Amino acid sequence: MVLFRRILGEVLRAHRMRRGLTLREVSAEARVSLGYISEIERGQKEASSELLASLCGALDLPLSDVLRDVSDAVAVEERALEIVPTPITVGSRPGVVASAA
Amino acid sequence: MVLFRRILGEVLRAHRMRRGLTLREVSAEARVSLGYISEIERGQKEASSELLASLCGALDLPLSDVLRDVSDAVAVEERALEIVPTPITVGSRPGVVASAA
Repeated sequence: MVLFRRILGEVLRAHRMRRGLTLREVSAEARVSLGYISEIERGQKEASSELLASLCGALDLPLSDVLRDVSDAVAVEERALEIVPTPITVGSRPGVVASAA
Repeated sequence: MVLFRRILGEVLRAHRMRRGLTLREVSAEARVSLGYISEIERGQKEASSELLASLCGALDLPLSDVLRDVSDAVAVEERALEIVPTPITVGSRPGVVASAA
């Protein structure tokens, strides 16, 4: 199962690092405790919609950009989950597994 | 302030309606109480990441699709909020307000 809060945390953290901001700086700007932001970035806490808006403001990022990045990253994981290790059948006879022989 | 939960609720509701599903059907499929789903659709409650995944499963929708729709709708609202009624300056002299004269 792909969890929204985990990917959201990764995206928020990546944007913060790209801007060269510390957790302390974002915490002061967004008026959210440093520990809480840290937990959100690690995907351990859900961010309320108000908090998410504050974090986007502190990072000077439109919420829509953050959500698009999350959508893109979720799509990558969804595609990876679809690739299940099932035997490859060859020809028209189902059940015949391809081999190097 | 554009709130994620409000737009998420609208998007989830639109997808449910498009599929011709009732709240009761989604509730049974996602194993989430009908009242809770209704509150999420109306933007009154935050959906946990696990619940969001269940709802997407019940609607047979990838989470990435839902998030992309939310991102698009948020972007529309962000653009609308940017259009603030400020005076239009003309020429090179700031402060000169355009008029019909």
